[in-house]
Amino acid sequence: MVNDEINGAEAILRTLSDNGVRTVFGNPGTSEMHFVAALDDHPEIRGVLCLFEGVATGAADGYARMTGRPAATLLHLGPGLGNGLANLHNARRAGSAVLNIVGDHAIDHKPLDALLESDIDAVAASVSAWVHRPARPSTVGRDVAAAIAATLDGPDEEHATGTSGRIATLIVPADVSWSPGGAAAPARPPRAVPDRPAAVDTVTKLLAGDEPVALLLDGDALTDDGLRAADRIAQVTGARLFCPTWPARLRRGAGMPGVTPLAYRSEDVRTQFAGVRHVVLAGARTPVASFAYPGRDGILIPAEVTAHVLAPELVPVADALREIADDLAPGTVARGSAAGVPVVPEGDLDAANWAPAIASLLPENAIVCDESITAGMATVPAAFAGAPAHDVLGLTGLAVGQGLPLAAGAALACPRRPVICLEADGSAIYTISALWTYARENLDITVVVLNNRSYAILRSELDRVGANQDAGAARRMLDLTRPDLDFVALSTGLGVPASRARTVRELREQFAAAVADPGPHLIEAVIV
Amino acid sequence: MVNDEINGAEAILRTLSDNGVRTVFGNPGTSEMHFVAALDDHPEIRGVLCLFEGVATGAADGYARMTGRPAATLLHLGPGLGNGLANLHNARRAGSAVLNIVGDHAIDHKPLDALLESDIDAVAASVSAWVHRPARPSTVGRDVAAAIAATLDGPDEEHATGTSGRIATLIVPADVSWSPGGAAAPARPPRAVPDRPAAVDTVTKLLAGDEPVALLLDGDALTDDGLRAADRIAQVTGARLFCPTWPARLRRGAGMPGVTPLAYRSEDVRTQFAGVRHVVLAGARTPVASFAYPGRDGILIPAEVTAHVLAPELVPVADALREIADDLAPGTVARGSAAGVPVVPEGDLDAANWAPAIASLLPENAIVCDESITAGMATVPAAFAGAPAHDVLGLTGLAVGQGLPLAAGAALACPRRPVICLEADGSAIYTISALWTYARENLDITVVVLNNRSYAILRSELDRVGANQDAGAARRMLDLTRPDLDFVALSTGLGVPASRARTVRELREQFAAAVADPGPHLIEAVIV
Repeated sequence: MVNDEINGAEAILRTLSDNGVRTVFGNPGTSEMHFVAALDDHPEIRGVLCLFEGVATGAADGYARMTGRPAATLLHLGPGLGNGLANLHNARRAGSAVLNIVGDHAIDHKPLDALLESDIDAVAASVSAWVHRPARPSTVGRDVAAAIAATLDGPDEEHATGTSGRIATLIVPADVSWSPGGAAAPARPPRAVPDRPAAVDTVTKLLAGDEPVALLLDGDALTDDGLRAADRIAQVTGARLFCPTWPARLRRGAGMPGVTPLAYRSEDVRTQFAGVRHVVLAGARTPVASFAYPGRDGILIPAEVTAHVLAPELVPVADALREIADDLAPGTVARGSAAGVPVVPEGDLDAANWAPAIASLLPENAIVCDESITAGMATVPAAFAGAPAHDVLGLTGLAVGQGLPLAAGAALACPRRPVICLEADGSAIYTISALWTYARENLDITVVVLNNRSYAILRSELDRVGANQDAGAARRMLDLTRPDLDFVALSTGLGVPASRARTVRELREQFAAAVADPGPHLIEAVIV
Repeated sequence: MVNDEINGAEAILRTLSDNGVRTVFGNPGTSEMHFVAALDDHPEIRGVLCLFEGVATGAADGYARMTGRPAATLLHLGPGLGNGLANLHNARRAGSAVLNIVGDHAIDHKPLDALLESDIDAVAASVSAWVHRPARPSTVGRDVAAAIAATLDGPDEEHATGTSGRIATLIVPADVSWSPGGAAAPARPPRAVPDRPAAVDTVTKLLAGDEPVALLLDGDALTDDGLRAADRIAQVTGARLFCPTWPARLRRGAGMPGVTPLAYRSEDVRTQFAGVRHVVLAGARTPVASFAYPGRDGILIPAEVTAHVLAPELVPVADALREIADDLAPGTVARGSAAGVPVVPEGDLDAANWAPAIASLLPENAIVCDESITAGMATVPAAFAGAPAHDVLGLTGLAVGQGLPLAAGAALACPRRPVICLEADGSAIYTISALWTYARENLDITVVVLNNRSYAILRSELDRVGANQDAGAARRMLDLTRPDLDFVALSTGLGVPASRARTVRELREQFAAAVADPGPHLIEAVIV
């Protein structure tokens, strides 16, 4: 119903509210001022100020991973979208529901090529499954409702870009926001129940057969329900359970069935698949190497292994796994990892001991945002397997700078759960201003920055490409010393209390104190 | 000449070197490792590590503004380019020569849709006048030479994107870098002398006539030569001299002819043009409002004023101005602003007194990167008019976060000139890690952060859209307190010594000490 008393911005906000979108992460500019002004009439919508758009988009990703629902981002024209692009890329790979509202110049102003003018549509389409430009206040509410539906159910044909994922971007001309005649749109009906995957019977037969099978789990196969079903299958069939190296969200820890992350290096994946004859993709993509190397295969499934799709990525699969489990393993109960973390002796922190030191003190039902990369990939899965059960959110798209923003969104989505962020030094600096939002919103987040003073992953890549070991100029491009980054000073400067740990005991003491005290904290763990 | 002993990465570096590109700002990843490795054999090329791609692209812009030549950036796939996009937007609006080298997956790896895969070409085209994907090592040198030519002379037809500016982007597949059979390309012949603008005679007649004329100067019209020619014309014809609000580069200060920046607000520009009948665009774009507002014109030239193009943007015009000056004002000598800066009394720093306090202590021949925005636009031009002559580099594309990176590039381009960076608080935080590069490279830069603890420009925009003055939720989105940003701690954490000034005396003392001591310094000026 068109309402001459409300403008387009108000129609957008009412529609967001009516559709259950109650959090907006933003860094607004002039073209979004009417939207910002309208926030005052919507106390039910929380506007969260981020000091950089990459924080806003990463936070929206974290929020979506923990709720399955979109938060909105509010971005300022093409450069604002550009600043948010890397974390939208990660959100796309996570399959996260994200609704971007990008303010643009007024329709008549666009042909003037004003200073901020740029091709927003092209940049938006590179990360969004759905892109649309509302044309008038009377239809903007309907457009917002359609965008929200696209984040939940996938894009409709009219506005589909062909890009994968669940990101919808509305590019809103300033005059659509400021003009009267706005109309909100009602809440959409809840999502339809997905069909039973057609491959259930084939996969059941395969699992009941004699040839060794691996299940590659992702999406809702990595929830409590999905993992328990998969484990019951594994018990009676001997199937091996794998998940991506850094999944979007995985339930892990004591009492939870174990699942093995695929190794980061393609040669190690080959070892993991030794003896396997079939791989069943359960909500997972076909695994491929992050990067090509001369003479190595890009596809990680060995040629002698046949792949079968139970459900492709983004399609729910936990119910199908339960059906298969009920069929093959009717009386079986899922196993859980034993509680307990290896005790590490006192000493200087190193790549091996920091993860068990933290895992042993993990609070119950924590959310762990893991961007520890090189500092963690060899040690975190084992160390956290026996920690209190928790959700871990991984670096899905390999665009660094995700962890700190992701933690903000997770903490806002789940205000009663403690959030732990494990951050590599080089990645932390990308979106360091997220810490300010932690302080502003008083989020219960403990950040542990693993400071090894280098782009360690790239040092090892440089070795792999065969560069000279004495390589001075090359190594200088991967070295984060001269000067050392002081994360205690950076954190303090952004309003988050911080401390530095150099030994196992210091890390344990500081971590225990941080998680016991509500609100944000940062610990710089110096890894030698 | 194809050389089986060198790979594509080496061919790229040799071609850069042979064409005079000696600085690479980068944040590399796995796909760029062969390029990084090849740096060891090219001590003549300086690889400058930036901790975020927006620093690399902003630095390349600053380098280009001061040299007229491209520096290269080294960026990691789509997300790396995305992180650099906002400052490439500013560089595009500045007409700066920038050569982006974006590493991509190996050609055979692209169809696998690996985690970092995205549509780099579309994002690149949104800021680049020229985009190309080299196909093999034997031609990559030629492609690099063509890209460099595009940054200097504009894009050739084959690879032109239709986007304005002087940015060229090479998207280099990893296997083009690592495979043998590379061939470097020789240096290109120097740029052709541009034609004399056809409009010289018309404009000369117009200026000699009776109707009041304004000259809108940009590009090389804002150099010492261009300004002196324009001033001679102004003396004999009464023409008024304007430049953009924040030009890419302007020579300013004692002994230099004055030129009036167009006001930021469109209503104020109308006042500036009062009585003018003709505007001559001398290397300048038609001025348009940064944003549209209900009921206001977007084009800033009033309807009763006729516009004439002497030379469009990016086309040199100083020679034409000199020809006109020699014709109309043969014996005239250009005037220069008187030396001297208003003395400001001791007291707390405010929006009015910080600029004269600094201008009075400006070192000779400084480079001033001005992203002070609201804190400076009313006071900086007047305060710096009588300071020792300097170059000022402005926020050309209105994408904030430009100033700190720009200063890094300017300092590397002109190592014997002091660089001063005037930074608004909200903008400084966008690309704060630039300070680390200052420390790493020991750049002689003094940053003054104007900390007014708000997005002040947006507060005033919120008032303009008529939001409620008590608006709580809205104002909270524009307020940078709770917690206050502590720039002294942030700077120290990034390796740059810092201090805080609250009074005119403190600012003067700290600024004098900073510019007297080589290397980077930061002063947080708290503006009440």
